[in-house]
Amino acid sequence: MYNHQPKDEPCSICIFLSGRETEHNKRSDIVFEDKNTIAFISPKWWINNPGHVIVASKKHFENIYDIPDNTLSRVYVIAKKISIALKEAYQCEGTSTRQHNEPAGNQDIWHFHIHVFPRYKNDDLYKRHDQSRFVEAKQRLPYAQKLQKYFLNYQHS
Amino acid sequence: MYNHQPKDEPCSICIFLSGRETEHNKRSDIVFEDKNTIAFISPKWWINNPGHVIVASKKHFENIYDIPDNTLSRVYVIAKKISIALKEAYQCEGTSTRQHNEPAGNQDIWHFHIHVFPRYKNDDLYKRHDQSRFVEAKQRLPYAQKLQKYFLNYQHS
Repeated sequence: MYNHQPKDEPCSICIFLSGRETEHNKRSDIVFEDKNTIAFISPKWWINNPGHVIVASKKHFENIYDIPDNTLSRVYVIAKKISIALKEAYQCEGTSTRQHNEPAGNQDIWHFHIHVFPRYKNDDLYKRHDQSRFVEAKQRLPYAQKLQKYFLNYQHS
Repeated sequence: MYNHQPKDEPCSICIFLSGRETEHNKRSDIVFEDKNTIAFISPKWWINNPGHVIVASKKHFENIYDIPDNTLSRVYVIAKKISIALKEAYQCEGTSTRQHNEPAGNQDIWHFHIHVFPRYKNDDLYKRHDQSRFVEAKQRLPYAQKLQKYFLNYQHS
């Protein structure tokens, strides 16, 4: 419903899920994975919120209109898990989530995903919306490692 | 977990749920309601996104860290329903959702809730974050009525 994915454009999240790495998505970015869901460090960062996390369904749905209720629920339960993990692993002062549908709604990756942000006092996440940029895999790695360590301890607790 | 609600501050969403109206929350703002969830026109609007909707759990939980998984899921299933309704009732060009935790995460109402926005090309929802303001009940009413009409037809279809 209301789909915008160009017919000749492969889905970058599906490519990543198939096991292929790109400069934007490395296996080392993955912080949590289960049967239905994947969570990884976003390749694009906002200026004062480094290391935010993308949570996506493994099955391809373009947007919130299309995703089945049970898949949607599962993705948000993992987003909750990531929010708690960010508080512990990054010691951030808050968290927020957002999700975009269609080009007018800021969507530019055609596979349903949620952004989970670590938040800090006066980070101006919204006002500085234009100040986002892609970061190198080596910049993402220490953030991924903090969350991977958190989930490893969490599993064993 | 990580709670910030001042002890002497009553919860404005719980007050509304108890049946009391204020200038910010009227019964006529309600567009959808079931056993666990309520959706109503936000009293605060962003400059190019009039009539956005708040979806909240009826039971009081402060934030994403505290809300149980099944309640969280239910609230997002209703947010999906509202997103589809906005497309039909407002003829908007996209939708987006966001959810805030703790003051550093832009939270200022201490009861878990999701913002569901109608989106339009170049609406600059994020860049113009500071340009929000409370609007009068009479401004909210035509938006509420559009969604109420949608859900009435939806029930009968």
